[in-house]
Order: sequence, then structure tokens, then C-alpha cells
Amino acid sequence: MIQLPQINGQSEVPMYRQLYEGLRDSILAGSLKDGERLPPTRDLAGQLGLNRATVSAAYALLEEDGLISGQVGRGSFVQSKGHGPDQEISFSTSRPAEELFPLEEIRQITAEVMRRSAAEVLQLGSPLGYRPLREYLTQEAIAEGVFDPETDDLLITSGCQQALDLIHKALISPSGYVHAEEPIYPGIRNAFGRALTVDADEPRIEAMIVTPSFRNPTGYTMSLSERRALAASVEGRRRLLIEVDIYSRLRYEGEALPTIRSLGAPTLLLRSFSKIAFPGLRVGWVIGAKPLIQKLATAKQWTDLHSDQLSQAILLEFARSGRLNAHLDRMLEAGRVRLAATLDTLEQMLPEGSSYTRPQGGMNLWVTLPEGCDSAVVLEKARREGVTYLPGRYFSVSTPMNQCFRLSFAGLSPARIVEGLRRLGPLFEDEARIASRYQDPRPEMAMV
Amino acid sequence: MIQLPQINGQSEVPMYRQLYEGLRDSILAGSLKDGERLPPTRDLAGQLGLNRATVSAAYALLEEDGLISGQVGRGSFVQSKGHGPDQEISFSTSRPAEELFPLEEIRQITAEVMRRSAAEVLQLGSPLGYRPLREYLTQEAIAEGVFDPETDDLLITSGCQQALDLIHKALISPSGYVHAEEPIYPGIRNAFGRALTVDADEPRIEAMIVTPSFRNPTGYTMSLSERRALAASVEGRRRLLIEVDIYSRLRYEGEALPTIRSLGAPTLLLRSFSKIAFPGLRVGWVIGAKPLIQKLATAKQWTDLHSDQLSQAILLEFARSGRLNAHLDRMLEAGRVRLAATLDTLEQMLPEGSSYTRPQGGMNLWVTLPEGCDSAVVLEKARREGVTYLPGRYFSVSTPMNQCFRLSFAGLSPARIVEGLRRLGPLFEDEARIASRYQDPRPEMAMV
Repeated sequence: MIQLPQINGQSEVPMYRQLYEGLRDSILAGSLKDGERLPPTRDLAGQLGLNRATVSAAYALLEEDGLISGQVGRGSFVQSKGHGPDQEISFSTSRPAEELFPLEEIRQITAEVMRRSAAEVLQLGSPLGYRPLREYLTQEAIAEGVFDPETDDLLITSGCQQALDLIHKALISPSGYVHAEEPIYPGIRNAFGRALTVDADEPRIEAMIVTPSFRNPTGYTMSLSERRALAASVEGRRRLLIEVDIYSRLRYEGEALPTIRSLGAPTLLLRSFSKIAFPGLRVGWVIGAKPLIQKLATAKQWTDLHSDQLSQAILLEFARSGRLNAHLDRMLEAGRVRLAATLDTLEQMLPEGSSYTRPQGGMNLWVTLPEGCDSAVVLEKARREGVTYLPGRYFSVSTPMNQCFRLSFAGLSPARIVEGLRRLGPLFEDEARIASRYQDPRPEMAMV
Repeated sequence: MIQLPQINGQSEVPMYRQLYEGLRDSILAGSLKDGERLPPTRDLAGQLGLNRATVSAAYALLEEDGLISGQVGRGSFVQSKGHGPDQEISFSTSRPAEELFPLEEIRQITAEVMRRSAAEVLQLGSPLGYRPLREYLTQEAIAEGVFDPETDDLLITSGCQQALDLIHKALISPSGYVHAEEPIYPGIRNAFGRALTVDADEPRIEAMIVTPSFRNPTGYTMSLSERRALAASVEGRRRLLIEVDIYSRLRYEGEALPTIRSLGAPTLLLRSFSKIAFPGLRVGWVIGAKPLIQKLATAKQWTDLHSDQLSQAILLEFARSGRLNAHLDRMLEAGRVRLAATLDTLEQMLPEGSSYTRPQGGMNLWVTLPEGCDSAVVLEKARREGVTYLPGRYFSVSTPMNQCFRLSFAGLSPARIVEGLRRLGPLFEDEARIASRYQDPRPEMAMV
């Protein structure tokens, strides 16, 4: 027999919401144990004097959080594994939610691929990639208007990260620079190493790298006019434009925006299955002009011969069968809820003087604490509370960004997001209080 | 009704061998078609007036060649796909034989991995590699005596090729050199690019790369005393010794030799599943001192985050279950026959003045044609005959090796090897005749 939450009929909070929150807190606190069966909706409704639909709505929210799972004909069961009070809540990784993975579908696809193409997939392949996947992605790109069969080509890479590495190797001269803006995703900074600059006036810049949609770490998205201006500015210049487009399909609200490549600029377009499907299967791709792709393919050959073929074959089938799109629908639904939970809770818990970005998609947002705060110092304390995030300095090249940190929300259930941010709140309050003490409250006198 | 081969009871060639060769030629010539059923051994024995065991022995050889396949209770069927007269015979690739892949086993393992570990395998992993595989390989290396848990570590790479790339990136300074000997595997030459030297006297050499067993392209294997001398020479020197050990388990004859690392030298030991199992699944590993592996792991992170996890999980299960060892037994058996077929046929068909290496294992051997011959010129004609190999210049850094070429035999059935070399024979004879004409038969007069 489970302990029943208190429901207040007079509250402004809807009753299904009260019930949801009560059960959620019991699960997170461990008083409802993993595997425990919840009462049937009809029984619980009777016990609490509620409408059965109210209980169903609460259960639906818990299921969305991944805190319970319903089994047809058997009832709903608590799934607190990974949700217990002693489990670390990590806002540190820009990755998809594991509980959304359609495991049964992937199992079926894998078996089908192995039944049909095992010998081919196990044998040595081509540096350009598994041919059926290349053909599929090429056809998709043609239909989308970002691929001209006359002039363009496509290379499969081991995720977007490898595309960056190959570009550095094959397309940037030893004395050349690649320009990127701060704050920067460390994978970009480290792929280019000494060749990276944040100084737009550096004369030896050979390439610029941009992430027009839901850029990591800020979640920033370029407007249509910014995209048009950038596309126009590339024309006639010799600089290569590297367009990282790995988050754009994760738009939870607002209208989709075109890639810069589709606006007519000859960018190198970098995409990946890692954010929209499964990062453990390392498959990304690059679309660009034939001579560039040829150089990248040669570099690929001497870097690792070719990408893993089984994963390429599985992801092809996942995409071609329409299951990727169905999965994306579920991810968008989940992402919307998670983003909202993050923004709502941040609103309540951040100390005055803080600010944060409000992305419409992707996996990350960027918080700036009040002046004088150090997010790395707070992280030490947060770890003791079982919560982590990545402090601003991880994303810095020349500007110290101690006040800032990245919050990666997509991999966590709404309940975990709320719980994690609630634990962080008091720590940030403390930090802001300490920081304000060291700030001179009187304005400085003018120097005369 | 198939056309029966002529069997000569007076010949010195055993009758099972005559029958085998007759049927083989019919399959290769296309007069026995793919899918056609051979007569039951009893029937064919009756028709030809032979002992039934003689027919069985011939069928066994055909099956070993991959030219027929027996199905229990249904008889033997021709498998000429990939063997027809119009199919290219490629001696160009150092890869395992596809027809030996234990597809059914791998299907089962894959299903099992997906049943047990799908979510884990699909999610983002560690740059060091899939933990259960790392642990397994570490335990194996400890048992073998090439890993000291106090001082050593292990990194999973995307095949041996990526280990070379990471070593170049992380361990060789911009002005440093890596020494290797000619002829050289192009994957080594190109992984190090400008940092590669074949000049042993170059003072800025920071690392040496050796392949002690069945080196690509020559098949050359270092003797025990050479290994000992090399291990001793490393002591006290600051040069890194990179030990490529991807072929040693493919020893078809002779005694196994120890790795240089097991002789006490702190080498970076590079291994891979690509040659001993399946090159399409990109998994290799490096064993070395902790600080070196740490640097390689950091480079790995910014190169492609981590290796594909599904393949790592599959190969772990393949190895741990003992199936890899069983597969290796079959590969050794097949390799022995293929190597023998190659050496026997070369003996008969190469023009006088040719020479070739006689490896005891691996996948490649190295042919040197008579003086003045150009293997690249012959290759043009060979292509028209449907046969390819890699000419010497692919393996050259400073020495022209026009007379030479690499013959990769492991991926081809004995019948294909014999057929391919028979097509090459007359072309090499022609080339040798032409080359000898351009050689002045009279010795040059002394210049006075």
C-alpha cells in the first residue's frame, strides 16, 4: 500500500498536477521504490475521491518523465533507476535522452540488416562511406535543395567531430586560421587547436565555422536576415564557410529556418545522427563541392580507413523506414517539455542579476550569473549535492567567462531537471551573496 | 545433366585431384552455373567408374575453395558468384576472406548484444573505449605478459589505422620524424605524412615503427634474435618504438615469436580485429605506458569522440565466447591452403630472374620481376584480363620499386588464386622478354 499524496481541492494548482507532483516527489525521494506497482487509476481515484481521468492525466505526466512505465494489462510500475536521490543529475552532456531510444525498433532493424547484409557490412568498405547510406543521404539532400549532383559530393564521417578533424587536416594550410565565435564548443576549439582564432581581423583566416541553429553552448540561433547576410558575404570570397547543422531538426517551437547552404552559399554542410538518433553509433556526413569532398575522403582513408559499416547500415534503415522521423516527433515532444521545465525553473531559482538564453530547440542553454560570481566555484559545491554542469571556462578561448555555465537539458527527464535546478538554486544564491559583498556599493569617483 | 570431366587412370595426378580440377575449371568457365546441383557422390562415382571416396575428396576441395556448398540432405550446389570468368580477381587488398565469416554466429551475438545492452551501446560513450571490451582486452594482455597494471593502459581505436593517426597527432612534435623501412604500407606513410622518414640517420627521429610479424607489403618477419636486438636497443633511448602487431596471429606455419614488448621493451603495441575478424567493424587497440595512452585518449576525443560502441560490444562477445579463437582456427587452415596455392603457382608461372618472399603467415607477399620490368605497365594489361594487384611504387618513399608488386592472397579462394596467377603468367613473360631486349647484352667498355 503506497502513501497517498495530499490533494487540495481549493488550490489553484490543478488536481492532476498536485497528484503528479506528489507521486513524483515520492519516487525521487525513494519512498516509492523501483519496480513497485502503482494502484490502477480506478482504485486510486476511488481512494482519493478524484475523477479517474484526473489520475490518468497524472500518470501520463509521470510516464512522460520516465518515472513510471505502463505495461498493457499489468498496470503502471515505478522506474526510479537513474532517478533516485543518490543518482548524479548531470547537466554536463549535450546528448539525447536514453529513455526515448526506440530499443525494440533498433533491435528489429539490426536483426534485419544482419540477415540481409552481414557479409557486406563485416567486410572492408569505402572511405566515402557505406554506399546505400551515401545514396540515401544524397537523394534526401537533393530533395531538400542542398545538393547539386553536378558539382557536389557527400562523405560519411564518424560523427560531426571527425568532419572537423578532417577539414583541419585536409583543407587548412599549416599557417592558416579558422575563425569561430566565443563561447565555443570545445570540440571545435580542440579539433582546430592552434589554427583556431576568435579574432575576426586575423588576415590568415581560411575558413569560418558557424552553427546557425541552436549553437552549442548558448543555444543561439541566427535569424533569417543574419543567414542571408552571411550567405551573401561568402560570395566571391575565398574563405570556406563550415556550417555545423546538427541541432536544427530539434526545433521545439518557432518556425524552421533555411540552412545557409540552401540560401546559395557553397558551405561545407556538416550533419550527424548523434543528436537526432544515437550518439553511440558514430555516423555523420559532410556535403560540399566535389574537390573538397575528395580531399576529405583521402584524409579519411589515412585517418581510419572508413567509418563503421554496421552502424551505417542500421541508421540507413532507421531513416529510410520512416522510423527516424517518428522518433524525431517523440524527441520534439519530449524536448519541448524539458526546455519548458528548464526555463520555468530557472526563472524561479536564479539569483537577481542573472540572465540566460531562451533557445527554441537543441540541447543547451547558457546562464550568466550576477557579476563577480564564479560558476566553477559553485560547481564544486554542486558536485557534493550530486549535480553537475560545465562552467564557462570550458567554452572560452580569450574571454574569461567565469560567470557563465552551460546547462544541457535534453538528456534529463523534466522531473530530474526540476530536482537538479532546485538543488542548484541555494548554491547560486550563496555565491551571489558572497560576490556582492566584494563589490564596492559606491560608484567610483571620476578620475580628474 | 552435367558434362563429366575426363579422368585418366594412368596419370600421376591422383584421380580425386583430376576430378576436382575438371569440375573447378567447369565452374570457373561458367559451364557449371551458379546454383546448379552436383550429382550425389554415389551417382557420380558410378558414372565415372570411381570409388565414392574419390568423389567425396574432390567435392571437399571444391567446398574448401568456396566453389560449391553442401546442404545437409539436399546435396552440393555450385557457388560461382564472385568466381565467374567475368569477375575481377583482386590481389590488391590485404583483407580476410569473406566466405569464412561466421555470419550465423555474428547474427546471434549481435541479437544478444542488442537484447542486453542496446541502450548503453546507443548512448554516448568514453574516448577510452567501451568499458567491458577494455577490461577484457586488458585482462588478456596481462595474462599474455604485455601489460603491467601499475604502469600501463589501453585505448580502443577505430582500427590500427587510427592508432597511427593519433600517435602522429599526440606524440610526435611538429619538427619530429618517425622512421620506417621501405617498402612501406601506404597507411603508415600517409598517417605520418611529412613526419615520415626512411633515413635512419635523420637526427630528429622521435619514433620508429616496426611490424615484426608478416609485415605489409613483404610478409617479412623478424627473427627472434632481431627482436631481442631491437628490444635491447630501445633501452635507455628516448625514441618511442611503435610495434604494429596486427598479423601475428595469422601464422600458418613455423613457430610463434614473442612481441618486442614482451621482450621487455616499452613499445606502443598496436592491435586490431580487422585482420583476424572483420574489417568492416572498425575496432583496434593500443597498449602502452599510462602517460602516452592518456595523451592518445585526449587526441581521440577531439578526433571522433569515441569508437563505435555496437561493434565494440559485438567483437567483445565474439572474443569472450571463444568464437574468435574457433574462427582463427578456420582462418589458419584456409590461409595455409591459400599461401601454398600462391607459392606453388608463382613457382610455375614467374619468368626466370624473378624472386618473391615466402612468408609463413599474414596476407601478403612481395614479388620482384626481372630487371627492367615495370609492374605498373603489366598492371594495365592485367586489368584487361580481370586481375589486379598493387605495384611497387605504392609502397615506395625514396627507392623506385618498379620491378616489384604486392600480392594479397588471403581474401581469395585457392581456385581464384590459381586462376588469377595463370592469367598473369603470360603478361609477366612478355614484360620480361621486352625488358631483356632493352638491356645491352655486351658489357660496357671501361671509360678511359
